[in-house]
Amino acid sequence: METVYLDNISLCPVLPEVRRAMARALEEDWGNPSSQHRLGEKSAEALAKAREQVAGLIGANLPREVVFTSCGTESVNLAIKGTAWAAGEKGKHIVTTNIEHNAVIRSLRRLKQMGFSITSVPVDGKGRVDPATVAKAIRKDTVLVSVMWANNEMGTIQPVEEISRVCREKKVPLHVDAVDAVGLIPVNVEELGAQLVSFASNPYGGPAGVGGLYIRRGTRLWPLLDGGVQEGRNRAGTENLLGVIGMGEAARLAAETLPARMEYARGLRNRLLEKLPRVVDDFLVNGDPDNCLPNLVSVSIRHLEGESIMLMLDEEGVAVSTRSACASGSLRASHVLLSAGLDFADAQGTLVISFGPQNTEADVDRFLEVLGPTVKSLLAISPLYKK
Amino acid sequence: METVYLDNISLCPVLPEVRRAMARALEEDWGNPSSQHRLGEKSAEALAKAREQVAGLIGANLPREVVFTSCGTESVNLAIKGTAWAAGEKGKHIVTTNIEHNAVIRSLRRLKQMGFSITSVPVDGKGRVDPATVAKAIRKDTVLVSVMWANNEMGTIQPVEEISRVCREKKVPLHVDAVDAVGLIPVNVEELGAQLVSFASNPYGGPAGVGGLYIRRGTRLWPLLDGGVQEGRNRAGTENLLGVIGMGEAARLAAETLPARMEYARGLRNRLLEKLPRVVDDFLVNGDPDNCLPNLVSVSIRHLEGESIMLMLDEEGVAVSTRSACASGSLRASHVLLSAGLDFADAQGTLVISFGPQNTEADVDRFLEVLGPTVKSLLAISPLYKK
Repeated sequence: METVYLDNISLCPVLPEVRRAMARALEEDWGNPSSQHRLGEKSAEALAKAREQVAGLIGANLPREVVFTSCGTESVNLAIKGTAWAAGEKGKHIVTTNIEHNAVIRSLRRLKQMGFSITSVPVDGKGRVDPATVAKAIRKDTVLVSVMWANNEMGTIQPVEEISRVCREKKVPLHVDAVDAVGLIPVNVEELGAQLVSFASNPYGGPAGVGGLYIRRGTRLWPLLDGGVQEGRNRAGTENLLGVIGMGEAARLAAETLPARMEYARGLRNRLLEKLPRVVDDFLVNGDPDNCLPNLVSVSIRHLEGESIMLMLDEEGVAVSTRSACASGSLRASHVLLSAGLDFADAQGTLVISFGPQNTEADVDRFLEVLGPTVKSLLAISPLYKK
Repeated sequence: METVYLDNISLCPVLPEVRRAMARALEEDWGNPSSQHRLGEKSAEALAKAREQVAGLIGANLPREVVFTSCGTESVNLAIKGTAWAAGEKGKHIVTTNIEHNAVIRSLRRLKQMGFSITSVPVDGKGRVDPATVAKAIRKDTVLVSVMWANNEMGTIQPVEEISRVCREKKVPLHVDAVDAVGLIPVNVEELGAQLVSFASNPYGGPAGVGGLYIRRGTRLWPLLDGGVQEGRNRAGTENLLGVIGMGEAARLAAETLPARMEYARGLRNRLLEKLPRVVDDFLVNGDPDNCLPNLVSVSIRHLEGESIMLMLDEEGVAVSTRSACASGSLRASHVLLSAGLDFADAQGTLVISFGPQNTEADVDRFLEVLGPTVKSLLAISPLYKK
């Protein structure tokens, strides 16, 4: 049975072009980019090329403002902890929002153990942050604001440009967690004006386990990984050159094809939302219809647990998710959905369906075809559901 | 011109079997190991298999004691900073040695900025630490001892078993930086009894940009990367599954072939040392002949700069290094060689020649054939050399 894979927000299949670039690189011999002989130079050149490709995708003026990391989570940790530690006597207060990814939440929790204090601002029912509440939360001793660009559970896109304006006015560095934005929607770090923008390689078809952090020229932060002089002294360690080459190729493709990919994903999304009422009666569509990721649908099927639906769909060869993969294993309802005002039962009934460029209309139809009977049979045994 | 590559300690070519395993993995589709549907399970299984292979290579009792990281440098940073931060009120003192890798030195320097104090013990002329000096350096508030297993510039192997005994007696956790030991010489973490052993994948023919940290069951440390629940909550972030699969395969091969590989490398090493006096008159062999990496030769050519020799050899298609690749770009003489008592000029004249399983006797001969005239022509213009 062929799996219909609709969990691209957790892990996207690597694009064929990227696989080919990596397979070629795997055949070649590479030196250490920090070595001074020729094989080292060849690696250093490959690294520089990938850095330009990634800088191109995010609109960075200077390739050296891009630091390669091992994943989005590392980028986020480096941005947040690195800035906090480097702030020294300036202060120990950080502003964030209620709907951040675990990488942000737990980096901040760690800093709290180290003496920092955190203010977390709420979101509205659509999962949006009001820039005015961010402005109000900023204090004299605030050394960082950290806000997500796009949410991976609701798909809501934040008003990051306005938040950036607020931060520039108040002269507080801004970190934007753009892991689920870069390569999915237009991102231009120069126009944004934030000091730090974290992202990964996988959401746009690059390999997993590679990430990037945009560090605006002049921004001070301490490395998480101390050691060699790699990555402009911002991140020590021998590079995952193979992964970086893949990320570069994925970035090049994403920069070229982003508008077409967005339109394609939006088509699938609309098809799903249009046909969904035909197979399920009682559901909520989460997020902000005017500001949402084109490739993500978050729906709460009322009276049911998302996990039961997900597991039954999996039996039928349809893969979706119920929340952030990084929060799997936790049995609590999503903090993101609760923050947006969903009640506990609805938050538990949420499915996240996310598209990649490999998905087709037939995938959407197959999902709906399987979802209808699944929901019916689960409702029949649901203690929450009364006819 | 085919390059004769003798800088395997900086970066080792990936083994053909490992390339094949990775090429196969590159063709497949993988879910996120943290997802709960089937594709996620498949990835979780691949991760578990690699973890067993790596645990086998280092002699860990439990695969879950192995945490995958993005490189040896990350493993070292996680071991040192993670333990120091988790120590809390127990103390803020750490013991190390004068010949550590930059990843250790700079992690400790960072902790110093955070209020820790460091005692660094000296080495003898062969680059060996005396376990008794480690014992003397341990105080009541010592929360960690960090010692290198094998040095990447001199090849000297430390008496880690005795140092581990000292640490167990004094009840202080021990971290062993085994990046240039695992896969090159026998390593058994259970017999060693250290709490933390860091290593990488590349030195034994695995991909660059993947590493591992052995964390003995019951050892407390704070993660460097906070976020998801991956790697037993010791290291958040989506895994570099492709790299991890390659590391697993390399570990499996290394465990199988280690004695044969060591003997083969020792043969090349002996050939080089035997023939070297025929092409160069005035040189020192660094390190400890009784306790040295089988695949590494460290020689200081007197009256010359190692960098000039290295660059001229490179012109002739022979790649060697002058010091740790992670310290390249720094113009100072190696702290490792100075610590072992070399004078500045000799330390500057050092070449590090390191073999991999792909090297042949012909490579050694080619190196010597090129080295002779190179040294002669450089001596002719050396201001340090008087006939």
